Amino acid sequence: MPGDLGFTSITEADDPRISAFRDIRERDLTGRQGRFIVEGTVVLRMLAAAHKAGGDFEAESILILENRLAGVSDILREFPSDVPIYVATASVLDAIVGFNLHRGILALGKRKSDKDMAQTIRQLPKSSLVLVGCGISNHDNLGSMFRNAAAFYADAVFMDATCCDPLYRKSLRVSVGSVLSVPYHRGGGAVEMLETLAAEGFDIWSLSPAGTTEIRQIPASNRMALVIGTEGDGLAPDVLTRFHTARIAQAPELDSLNAGTASGLALYQMASAIGRI
Amino acid sequence: MPGDLGFTSITEADDPRISAFRDIRERDLTGRQGRFIVEGTVVLRMLAAAHKAGGDFEAESILILENRLAGVSDILREFPSDVPIYVATASVLDAIVGFNLHRGILALGKRKSDKDMAQTIRQLPKSSLVLVGCGISNHDNLGSMFRNAAAFYADAVFMDATCCDPLYRKSLRVSVGSVLSVPYHRGGGAVEMLETLAAEGFDIWSLSPAGTTEIRQIPASNRMALVIGTEGDGLAPDVLTRFHTARIAQAPELDSLNAGTASGLALYQMASAIGRI
Repeated sequence: MPGDLGFTSITEADDPRISAFRDIRERDLTGRQGRFIVEGTVVLRMLAAAHKAGGDFEAESILILENRLAGVSDILREFPSDVPIYVATASVLDAIVGFNLHRGILALGKRKSDKDMAQTIRQLPKSSLVLVGCGISNHDNLGSMFRNAAAFYADAVFMDATCCDPLYRKSLRVSVGSVLSVPYHRGGGAVEMLETLAAEGFDIWSLSPAGTTEIRQIPASNRMALVIGTEGDGLAPDVLTRFHTARIAQAPELDSLNAGTASGLALYQMASAIGRI
Repeated sequence: MPGDLGFTSITEADDPRISAFRDIRERDLTGRQGRFIVEGTVVLRMLAAAHKAGGDFEAESILILENRLAGVSDILREFPSDVPIYVATASVLDAIVGFNLHRGILALGKRKSDKDMAQTIRQLPKSSLVLVGCGISNHDNLGSMFRNAAAFYADAVFMDATCCDPLYRKSLRVSVGSVLSVPYHRGGGAVEMLETLAAEGFDIWSLSPAGTTEIRQIPASNRMALVIGTEGDGLAPDVLTRFHTARIAQAPELDSLNAGTASGLALYQMASAIGRI
């Protein structure tokens, strides 16, 4: 084991120092006071970067499977030394987290601050591309939307109050940690949120199979927002009628694309239109 | 209940007529002799269409939750009357299938025939767009690739022997049933498969973060194949060096896109280049 890395060995599953990791599957379903679970090396690295940047997120503690320690020591060194690193055997770890999907790399993170919508908008550059989710309840899709937002240089993600929490374990994992790097705000009603963005100079493009403009034809503008609705019902009529609508050309008899994939296709086109990629 | 629809009520979970549906989660892991489980209305409708078309797939039996029967009667009428429809209460159905994710709509399908690679290629039109998977082991990603193939008018999907089975329950569901509508072949080695396609006049485009041609720049040609590798290791070097390579422009510090999303982006560009969308 890396000798220069300070860590604490945990030998009992009921050790209070690692109580936050107990039954993380259940924890996802309960109030968490801004805390979230990080799994795997990719997201752990993003948490280290977020902590270092001193933004909205910080690490509270790290829990590593004994035989994974050497392999992630370079990432662990990126955290300040006051973030405790706990190391446990497989049997302790399995007993703690209740299932074996964690791959031996876990951390407990905390959202330190929660900016409101106005603050989040104020921090956007003059020329901006943002992604907006309305009623996205599938954690995979929301995670995928964040991953695509990061890949195609979106400046922020906005979600109405009916979207699920992007810090949920599965969203965070599917986002490959992008939830920790792309600024976001979640809350409020969909129409109110879009009207706020429109008032801030955003051209609002709602994606829908019935949209009038094909995504390749969306004209570049200084501030662009792509809006994705829930897979089942799509976007509400009052959203579709008030703003621009866009569609993805596809075989008509088939269900419209998955929300994650659709967000990737449209963001790619918009990022391309404004010369970001 | 719809009186003109012939069905059989099942009152015992151990009724041998529905034994094929017992513990379907386990069945996915075992040999199935070309049989597969269909869940939900969207895929059931695709199975009906496939059965009617008289192609590679047929329905063997259908199992519906009592209170879902009326809602799907229009789909059930699309099946020939010799396909048995079993109807059960929630308690019987839960006991049969062992978990409650089926939404009360299940069918047992069978792959009747298995064309070899040469036969599958022979049935392609002169101008063709095909999707190729190498080592895709994630059922979600494979299902998503089929969904995108169907959406962007691909003529077939080819998979090497190391890809998972697209008829696996979860792949089929994520594909929204496209596995039953897009012709496919699975088997053989990746390089051998690609060389066969090249010999049949296909321009082979392997997608990789290190690809030389950005997907917007892929030139149209009469026969085009898009190749997607496994997420972890990507495509093997011998695949990348022998054929054209393409990349998706994205933020460089981030993991490359999910295989499902990446296939959608590249297929969209290729279908667009050849004027299919």
